[in-house]
Amino acid sequence: MQKGVIMSFLEKFLRLHEEKNSILCVGLDPAVPNQRKSKTIPRKYMECDDENEARLNFCLDIIDAVKDYSVAMKPNQQYIFGFTKDQHQQLTDSIRKAGMLSILDYKLNDIGESIKSAIFHIAETGYDAITFNPLPGNLEETVLLAHHAKQLRGAELGIIVLTLMSNPESMLFMKKTRVGKIPLFQLIAEQVKYCNADGCVVGATDHITGNDIKLIRRITGPEKVFLMPGIGAQKGSIRKTLKVSGKNTLLNVGRDIIYSKNPRKKAKEYNTRINANKLHSSL
Amino acid sequence: MQKGVIMSFLEKFLRLHEEKNSILCVGLDPAVPNQRKSKTIPRKYMECDDENEARLNFCLDIIDAVKDYSVAMKPNQQYIFGFTKDQHQQLTDSIRKAGMLSILDYKLNDIGESIKSAIFHIAETGYDAITFNPLPGNLEETVLLAHHAKQLRGAELGIIVLTLMSNPESMLFMKKTRVGKIPLFQLIAEQVKYCNADGCVVGATDHITGNDIKLIRRITGPEKVFLMPGIGAQKGSIRKTLKVSGKNTLLNVGRDIIYSKNPRKKAKEYNTRINANKLHSSL
Repeated sequence: MQKGVIMSFLEKFLRLHEEKNSILCVGLDPAVPNQRKSKTIPRKYMECDDENEARLNFCLDIIDAVKDYSVAMKPNQQYIFGFTKDQHQQLTDSIRKAGMLSILDYKLNDIGESIKSAIFHIAETGYDAITFNPLPGNLEETVLLAHHAKQLRGAELGIIVLTLMSNPESMLFMKKTRVGKIPLFQLIAEQVKYCNADGCVVGATDHITGNDIKLIRRITGPEKVFLMPGIGAQKGSIRKTLKVSGKNTLLNVGRDIIYSKNPRKKAKEYNTRINANKLHSSL
Repeated sequence: MQKGVIMSFLEKFLRLHEEKNSILCVGLDPAVPNQRKSKTIPRKYMECDDENEARLNFCLDIIDAVKDYSVAMKPNQQYIFGFTKDQHQQLTDSIRKAGMLSILDYKLNDIGESIKSAIFHIAETGYDAITFNPLPGNLEETVLLAHHAKQLRGAELGIIVLTLMSNPESMLFMKKTRVGKIPLFQLIAEQVKYCNADGCVVGATDHITGNDIKLIRRITGPEKVFLMPGIGAQKGSIRKTLKVSGKNTLLNVGRDIIYSKNPRKKAKEYNTRINANKLHSSL
């Protein structure tokens, strides 16, 4: 990318997506061995005796392994809780150098001054975008602050809004919950459009139907980037999803790649499968 | 407190509240000087040239200053972004030694494995409770995991759920949004009761009426701890709030205490005013 040019999240997505021929986003969920029984970072990383270093080194190795086949990395705040700003920056630097987008899955939700503070700190760490929970509101203010961050750091911070999630309770909280006659997720999609947010998190499995995804895409228009978890370990269908999600889609795969024996090979396999379905869906 | 006894958040609240004769919670929002123009931590803390150390030292001094007049401290994730787990623990140790409850204002919201990961890391840092955003759901699972943390760390982690916030958009997202015929905040209050969460965040200003607070209290029952921001800089009325919020209430004041010239004196003043209104309201 040309140095000194301030690009929006969408512009960065479009350029990298073409360069890489990939819409694969790899979720970075580094679980330490005493955290659960399986799907944890290999023991060798724990030799350094510093949990942060161990998690960071694992992430840096995964970034290097998958970089030829993925266009974005999504570190998950709940797994990197305790990282310093410097460690966040090491992550984002490494992701940028590997020609990928860095999306912090932070699920920011707050009010007034606290949002300003979050944007201030996160913008300093160099992420290209963060995820945002639309309850209890303040999306417009958040987008303005995040896009304004370009004046401070030479880069816009993108805001990707949880619009419809695939967990069973989202059925109650995002679909059955209504504002007037429309379901909450539809109102959220309208706000994404109206507030000029950069994209939507939309699940690709369970109770989420093709019609749900189509409806969200129709409301937001073709440009917003859809970040879609649910492929991979969660068994969502790549083909069905890509048929309705539009061109500007990122398909997220986490555990199934990062805890496989050969993350590079696995990322390549996913990218090939995704691209085959992309052609098929004439996206 | 007796060592080795595992107490719930409510039990800890009841004991400390009586010991201290206080329902004041002090919000720890340490803004660094290059973050905004006023209400920032004094320059002297920045001499150490490490932003984390500066913010931590400021917090530790505030804890020491207000400990005789407050029963809880609420560090805000958006202001302490970048703290290591060790730094979080220094905070919670210091708060515990000063005889107060530590509530991390984290606004956790996530699904499945990610919630487990957040609870794992946060339980290790020793907080007594965290705040939780009820969208997109999974409260029951979160409460079970957080209360189960006592088996791991000898302490239950309390879950305090955003139930009705005072920002203008909450009017749309939490009141006008309905599930069947009931407003979303009422459904959330029912879930707090049903899922055995420990408390509710309920604003004490702007569009939130005495009747709203009464309704939430009626649904949750008398035991749940209401954490109520809005007093202080946000100008909510102590008297009106305490009339309807019930006995188990924490009134949060942040900026107005921590950035005053004399935080100890200011905390004392607030505690005196609160207790005068408490008596008046015969709580």
